[in-house]
Amino acid sequence: MDITPRNPENREPISLSTQSKMTEAWKAKATAKREALSSLIPPEWRLPTPVPPPSELPNVTREIRRYLSPQEISITESSAVEIVTKTSTGQWKCEAVTRAFCHRAALAHQMINCLHEIFFDAAIDSARSLDEYYGNHRKPRGPLHGLPISLKDTIHVEGVQTSMGIVGWLDTVEGQSRGPHPEHTKRGYSSLIVQNLQGLGAIPYVKTSVPQGSFSGETTNHIIGHTPNPANRNLVVGGSSGGEGGLLALYGSPLGLGTDIGGSIRVPAAFNECFGLKPSTGRLPFQGIASVVDGEAAIPFVVGPMAHSAGDLVFCVRALLAVEPWRGDPLVLELPWRDEVFESTKRIFRGLEPAARLAFGVMVSDGVVNPQPPVTRALGEVVQLLRALGHTVIEWKPPSHAEALKLWRENCVIDGGTKFHNALSLSSEPATPTVFGNRARAPVDGSEVMARTVALREYRKAYLDYWESTADETGTGRAVDALIAPVHHGPPPAKGKVRYMGYTCAFNVLDYSASVIPVTRARKDVDVYTEGYSALNPMDKMAYEDYDPGLLDGAPVGVQIVGRRLQEETVLALAEEISSAMEKGDPSRL
Amino acid sequence: MDITPRNPENREPISLSTQSKMTEAWKAKATAKREALSSLIPPEWRLPTPVPPPSELPNVTREIRRYLSPQEISITESSAVEIVTKTSTGQWKCEAVTRAFCHRAALAHQMINCLHEIFFDAAIDSARSLDEYYGNHRKPRGPLHGLPISLKDTIHVEGVQTSMGIVGWLDTVEGQSRGPHPEHTKRGYSSLIVQNLQGLGAIPYVKTSVPQGSFSGETTNHIIGHTPNPANRNLVVGGSSGGEGGLLALYGSPLGLGTDIGGSIRVPAAFNECFGLKPSTGRLPFQGIASVVDGEAAIPFVVGPMAHSAGDLVFCVRALLAVEPWRGDPLVLELPWRDEVFESTKRIFRGLEPAARLAFGVMVSDGVVNPQPPVTRALGEVVQLLRALGHTVIEWKPPSHAEALKLWRENCVIDGGTKFHNALSLSSEPATPTVFGNRARAPVDGSEVMARTVALREYRKAYLDYWESTADETGTGRAVDALIAPVHHGPPPAKGKVRYMGYTCAFNVLDYSASVIPVTRARKDVDVYTEGYSALNPMDKMAYEDYDPGLLDGAPVGVQIVGRRLQEETVLALAEEISSAMEKGDPSRL
Repeated sequence: MDITPRNPENREPISLSTQSKMTEAWKAKATAKREALSSLIPPEWRLPTPVPPPSELPNVTREIRRYLSPQEISITESSAVEIVTKTSTGQWKCEAVTRAFCHRAALAHQMINCLHEIFFDAAIDSARSLDEYYGNHRKPRGPLHGLPISLKDTIHVEGVQTSMGIVGWLDTVEGQSRGPHPEHTKRGYSSLIVQNLQGLGAIPYVKTSVPQGSFSGETTNHIIGHTPNPANRNLVVGGSSGGEGGLLALYGSPLGLGTDIGGSIRVPAAFNECFGLKPSTGRLPFQGIASVVDGEAAIPFVVGPMAHSAGDLVFCVRALLAVEPWRGDPLVLELPWRDEVFESTKRIFRGLEPAARLAFGVMVSDGVVNPQPPVTRALGEVVQLLRALGHTVIEWKPPSHAEALKLWRENCVIDGGTKFHNALSLSSEPATPTVFGNRARAPVDGSEVMARTVALREYRKAYLDYWESTADETGTGRAVDALIAPVHHGPPPAKGKVRYMGYTCAFNVLDYSASVIPVTRARKDVDVYTEGYSALNPMDKMAYEDYDPGLLDGAPVGVQIVGRRLQEETVLALAEEISSAMEKGDPSRL
Repeated sequence: MDITPRNPENREPISLSTQSKMTEAWKAKATAKREALSSLIPPEWRLPTPVPPPSELPNVTREIRRYLSPQEISITESSAVEIVTKTSTGQWKCEAVTRAFCHRAALAHQMINCLHEIFFDAAIDSARSLDEYYGNHRKPRGPLHGLPISLKDTIHVEGVQTSMGIVGWLDTVEGQSRGPHPEHTKRGYSSLIVQNLQGLGAIPYVKTSVPQGSFSGETTNHIIGHTPNPANRNLVVGGSSGGEGGLLALYGSPLGLGTDIGGSIRVPAAFNECFGLKPSTGRLPFQGIASVVDGEAAIPFVVGPMAHSAGDLVFCVRALLAVEPWRGDPLVLELPWRDEVFESTKRIFRGLEPAARLAFGVMVSDGVVNPQPPVTRALGEVVQLLRALGHTVIEWKPPSHAEALKLWRENCVIDGGTKFHNALSLSSEPATPTVFGNRARAPVDGSEVMARTVALREYRKAYLDYWESTADETGTGRAVDALIAPVHHGPPPAKGKVRYMGYTCAFNVLDYSASVIPVTRARKDVDVYTEGYSALNPMDKMAYEDYDPGLLDGAPVGVQIVGRRLQEETVLALAEEISSAMEKGDPSRL
């Protein structure tokens, strides 16, 4: 099989017989990869019999425990902070921790196809070397000593492939023959954030599944197939950091990294009852992470953590900023962790400051697609809590979110999807139907790029002015401190039905910081539309018709906590405080 | 005369006779504007006889004093800090201060054509109202109480035109018929930074000349003609903030704002023996400032101060950041003035910290065009001073600056100059020969925009890695704290000979912070090439041949102090310390 990357522009005309052979070739290549991956799971970690089909056993989040020892369960259901506390004091061996997560991740993959890369042996070697370090020095190697960390398969790890769900990328570096990649020559092939994490003592061990090209709210590709939602395998896991979401829901990882250009961290976080942070651009290092829109700078991908608690997100971000990533990534701002902002937000939230309480905006609808009943209820519960705690909540009436969506579409794919479709054509695989931009368009010209950039700035300005104007309404003397908004208009839907990502896209358009916290689960008994629902538009009508209370019963619902640009400390402090007040994030809920 | 802006794409075909009428029209319009401007100078401030021609009196920097009272001289040759100290304590009336600067600016304009807009009456009204405020409250209105401030004519002031040296922009808002401009609807027609400055108590009174479209190192346009260098009117004033530079050299302003995309603050600062700051993008608010490359986001224009001392730059930046411009400009980073960085840099410079001294890189040449002898001597004097004070200076051997220049050209004008040439065609005026991009090209496509953005990031990464790698060389345990570099390869040349802006462009490509300080003046007796100079390339040969020690004798030479991205505090602290150690910035030197 010829796996040399092809330049699609110089490719010879394909005769029908060649074409069919190539079709054969990409399918074979995908199959081979899928099988190679499975073979990396040690025999003793293989399921004795396949799990029953989703129709019989939709939820596998409890099922997975059957295959684990009590010690493994105890380790894997600990928070990242708890794990590091124990590995850093010799109470737990890093090797035991890493093995437990490798085992659980292997099981998870057999249940929901959530991994793209497995490198258990390298991880266990790293763990042993950390144990040896601790044995010799009686101190941890770094603040993340021995913490296993899962990575979305857009993030490079030296010696491990990155397919990003694209068949033609297998055995290449982002579609190029292996060799010195300009950005990798100095420091090897790992993305900067992986180098930083490893320097802090963290241990990467798996890379998780993504939609083809990492550009969809549903995680399906031709290599790994489909990643379903482990809490209900009849529903989607979300995307594009879908494998991360599913793996976290199964406690196959204590902490993962996703990337987000339109909701790709936040949607799978919400769909899997976990926590996530989409930082503003320039806060965490994206250096050396793959993207099919690399060089699109107006609304770029950002990298951020996903975890079982807000505290673990804070733990990760704090550690990453302490290594001064602006010294390695020219796009990272020299903006250290601002503990005073974080702590003061928490104190004000708890009423420990003489000043007034906090003020929030709540977005009950973006005016394009109304939230389905479980999401409306989730928002209501958060608002009720905030008001009960003495905070002000005002209704959010911002500039048009339809305009935000338009700007998102206009600014994200200025090459008309050329880079993505060129990547697909390396192997001749077709675009999957659920991927954004599955039909290639002509690139726009430089004048149009500039006009769109100006329109984007004008929208950001209008939104900022609106945000600031709320100072007249809050009664705190300040504009709202944060915004509570849906993550998605509904709980995770059935496959093929992630139709709208507007609630998350809008905050990429604005480059605002946003955390996601779990809030509730859909309940078929209470979460019903009032009679005579009047749809806003055909898209909203579809969202209304998609809602199936029976199918979605029990499906997770989260909310976004949105701060202005670069307000990561604020949205993390609030994620911690609000989720703690709601008592979320405890694995015993499973 | 029809002054309705035309959409050049929908314009009717022009017959020869129409064309000649239009040619007539733009010339007449430019003349009318020039004359209207002159008529705004009160008769008592008009020169009784024109100044002698440059051949007889090249230097007018002392000449201007002849027309001023001792009190006016005393006011206008005070620093911004001194002025505000006096206006804020009632020692000086704001009106007297404003009148003195209006008078001196009016004289300056008659000597070097440095103004595009005059609004003395409005300024004097504002001054009176501030005096009234002080009279009533016995305290200043704000930290810039009564400080006159000049503005480059790319910055909007409500009620005043912005032509930016483009005839077709006269009587329009950036080429559009007057009316609600999307970015201006909320807060009037002033650029945000003007609103901020006025809120702080500053008084705009003039807008200064720029090259046609503000895209050249030489200040020439069809409206105002040519702005020569006041220290030698046979030489250029620099550009594009050329009017600012010239006005400052004549002490017709205590503090001005320029904009910079390739050296437009720094080159005129150096050519006029004054100080300037080009901040990184996102530090000071560019919201609502005009640009013919608006929407080009990879290497955008930035706004920054120009002044008679580094202390005045600090004064201005500190005041501007105190109003939290990120609340009004969505592109400004929430990064307050970091006084600890500023003060600690100064203490280390002075040897007041137990830690090691500072480390500097010195760029003796960028490898594309070698500095002419006066610039090499200026660099040597700074290096000698730094070493004498105990600091380390290493030779700077960065990634190719030729590559930086290529990236600058590739990223700055992705529309091929369409926006600029459309602006020119509003009136049918031709492009001036010294403007960058005077021939329109086809816009590049979105794929190419993305490829260029990636190449830019890779260059920034390589440069950052190089910067960090100097930690091995400095002996301080840190990478270099700042870089000392030429501003321009020579002193201000004769008209038409600003051939190369590579020394400044490179730091726009990198988005680094850079301050400019005056260092010396060219001396025909000592600043000569050694015999047998071997040129690097044809451009360097031209620079060598351009050098005319006799013509340039006495022309100002400055250097850049360059810090990494967003290191404004560092480069300002060093500008203050180094210039103070060199005893620069005293008007008695004139």
